[in-house]
Amino acid sequence: MNKTMEIIGFIAAILTTAAFLPQVYKTWKTKDVSGLSLPMLLLFFVGVICWLVYGFYKESPSMIMANTITIVSAFFLVYFKIKYDKK
Amino acid sequence: MNKTMEIIGFIAAILTTAAFLPQVYKTWKTKDVSGLSLPMLLLFFVGVICWLVYGFYKESPSMIMANTITIVSAFFLVYFKIKYDKK
Repeated sequence: MNKTMEIIGFIAAILTTAAFLPQVYKTWKTKDVSGLSLPMLLLFFVGVICWLVYGFYKESPSMIMANTITIVSAFFLVYFKIKYDKK
Repeated sequence: MNKTMEIIGFIAAILTTAAFLPQVYKTWKTKDVSGLSLPMLLLFFVGVICWLVYGFYKESPSMIMANTITIVSAFFLVYFKIKYDKK
């Protein structure tokens, strides 16, 4: 049970992280940040940091893994938004 | 400590959920689904279901709350993508 649930957690981590990466890649390639909202990105970024802290508290390897990768992804989106939004 | 960490979990839940809702609203209003990838949406949808199952296992109210709302949001995005993509 314990092991099965950790596997489900890891599947969750892989799927939601994998679904997020193409957005980062697309934004990097196209430099089109018009559809991205900076306040929303910042809220999301802070939110993911909170999830990571919470993941450590819950001693959840899948939450720690997923949120570490997502923090990096979200950071890049914030960076791209600030960098490419100066028209 | 216990209570503080659950509050951080709830902040995480509110922030990441709030950051997702404008996307749903925007897609609903504009019917512009060109930037959305169906395979990615489906991966994300299944991923969030796994997170919800895992959240019950971890007995985490904030994970259960966040992922329930996100499942509904992701479901709408999948629905909009299928409905509005027939050009």
